[in-house]
Amino acid sequence: MNGTAKLIGVGVGPGDPELLTLKAVRALAQADVVAHFAKAGRSGNAHAIVAGHLKPDVVELPLLFPVTTEIPKDAPAYCSAIKEFYDGCASAIAAHLDAGRSVAVLCEGDPLFYGSYMHLQVRLAARYPTDVIAGVTGMSGSWSAAGMPIAQGNDVFTVLPGTLPEPELERRLADADAAVVMKLGRNLPKVRRALERAGRLDRAIYVERGTTAVAVTLPLAAKTGDEAPYFAMILVPGWEGRP
Amino acid sequence: MNGTAKLIGVGVGPGDPELLTLKAVRALAQADVVAHFAKAGRSGNAHAIVAGHLKPDVVELPLLFPVTTEIPKDAPAYCSAIKEFYDGCASAIAAHLDAGRSVAVLCEGDPLFYGSYMHLQVRLAARYPTDVIAGVTGMSGSWSAAGMPIAQGNDVFTVLPGTLPEPELERRLADADAAVVMKLGRNLPKVRRALERAGRLDRAIYVERGTTAVAVTLPLAAKTGDEAPYFAMILVPGWEGRP
Repeated sequence: MNGTAKLIGVGVGPGDPELLTLKAVRALAQADVVAHFAKAGRSGNAHAIVAGHLKPDVVELPLLFPVTTEIPKDAPAYCSAIKEFYDGCASAIAAHLDAGRSVAVLCEGDPLFYGSYMHLQVRLAARYPTDVIAGVTGMSGSWSAAGMPIAQGNDVFTVLPGTLPEPELERRLADADAAVVMKLGRNLPKVRRALERAGRLDRAIYVERGTTAVAVTLPLAAKTGDEAPYFAMILVPGWEGRP
Repeated sequence: MNGTAKLIGVGVGPGDPELLTLKAVRALAQADVVAHFAKAGRSGNAHAIVAGHLKPDVVELPLLFPVTTEIPKDAPAYCSAIKEFYDGCASAIAAHLDAGRSVAVLCEGDPLFYGSYMHLQVRLAARYPTDVIAGVTGMSGSWSAAGMPIAQGNDVFTVLPGTLPEPELERRLADADAAVVMKLGRNLPKVRRALERAGRLDRAIYVERGTTAVAVTLPLAAKTGDEAPYFAMILVPGWEGRP
């Protein structure tokens, strides 16, 4: 314990450990407690990224998502279970903060951009000193690794969760100059159809584990099969009016 | 000269020098030549961010935008002048690469996300080894400094240039769950009206120099006056369906 109770949401970037920021490295080296979200039985990607940067005597606090795959995500029982989970995480962190310990929460990508950390931020920021360290997003990592300019000048750029209904995906893809479709997984066949109907299939790039040594990047039209991990994404570059 | 001719687009992040990545720091420490875009008479923000990380004998290559403010951006004369400028920049860099030097191009934020670097990437990547190092975007830096969750779950997130026509801004703001409006400057009064008509003014946050010591962050409704720097932005957080 060092008497500097503070909650810090630490963006650890898209996967390549070198895409940690200097600020994240400093925060990790000073944190008394390091928390990370993970599924039960897995250590989580964020944890692998920061290995080697933590204090030798750091206290690890895994925040393990409840097993909820059997409940539909729009069901009241799911909302209730997940709310209870975040309440419990906030209490566990608050106990460390009350004891004067600094707590860093590892966040893949950028903490406040589609990240679980924000559920802790809204529960704790009013009661404790809080800092958020921005990180490189998974999508930036992906288009950089692919060397593909995504948006320029007057382009409208849109991020779409693959969970949206097919007609909405089609409408929004047709209406944007540049787009990223996240949360692919089992939504891939639907997203592929929406891209085709929106006239964007020929520009779409499929990316899996974007900034890692096992990255897969290929035109979606060339991808056979409908298997995709949940964190795979599709990039639709804009920039048609380049000078 | 060290015989490793390579073009590297280096994302230097949103302004706080600590938001440089480890990968950017390593690339800067090794680069024979460091190029950066700037307006004539100014050294540029990116240059200030990396001070202290460059080789002592580094060759500096400023890429100075031609004075074009008197030409409308949609005029053929502007397109022609800017195309000629990027062609000249690519030639100057190619000369260094041909001599076996590595060239790092400093990019505020993330190189391939609305950045000038991509004009060099498309001109040179087919001819020379090229690497792009993703960076923290200005918008991530801004919502992190403000501690404001921007998007979550099934939110649709959209980036809009403030240069768009007012009816289009209004339509797109009303159609997105979360949004960022960039390129504010003289577009602020128009953007404010579009936000009001779209029913988003009460949620809009105005941010100036987001991650620096002189940051300004306030509700847009509380901002008096219509003065804004070009790189100021407006954040419209989503996340209405939080569990």
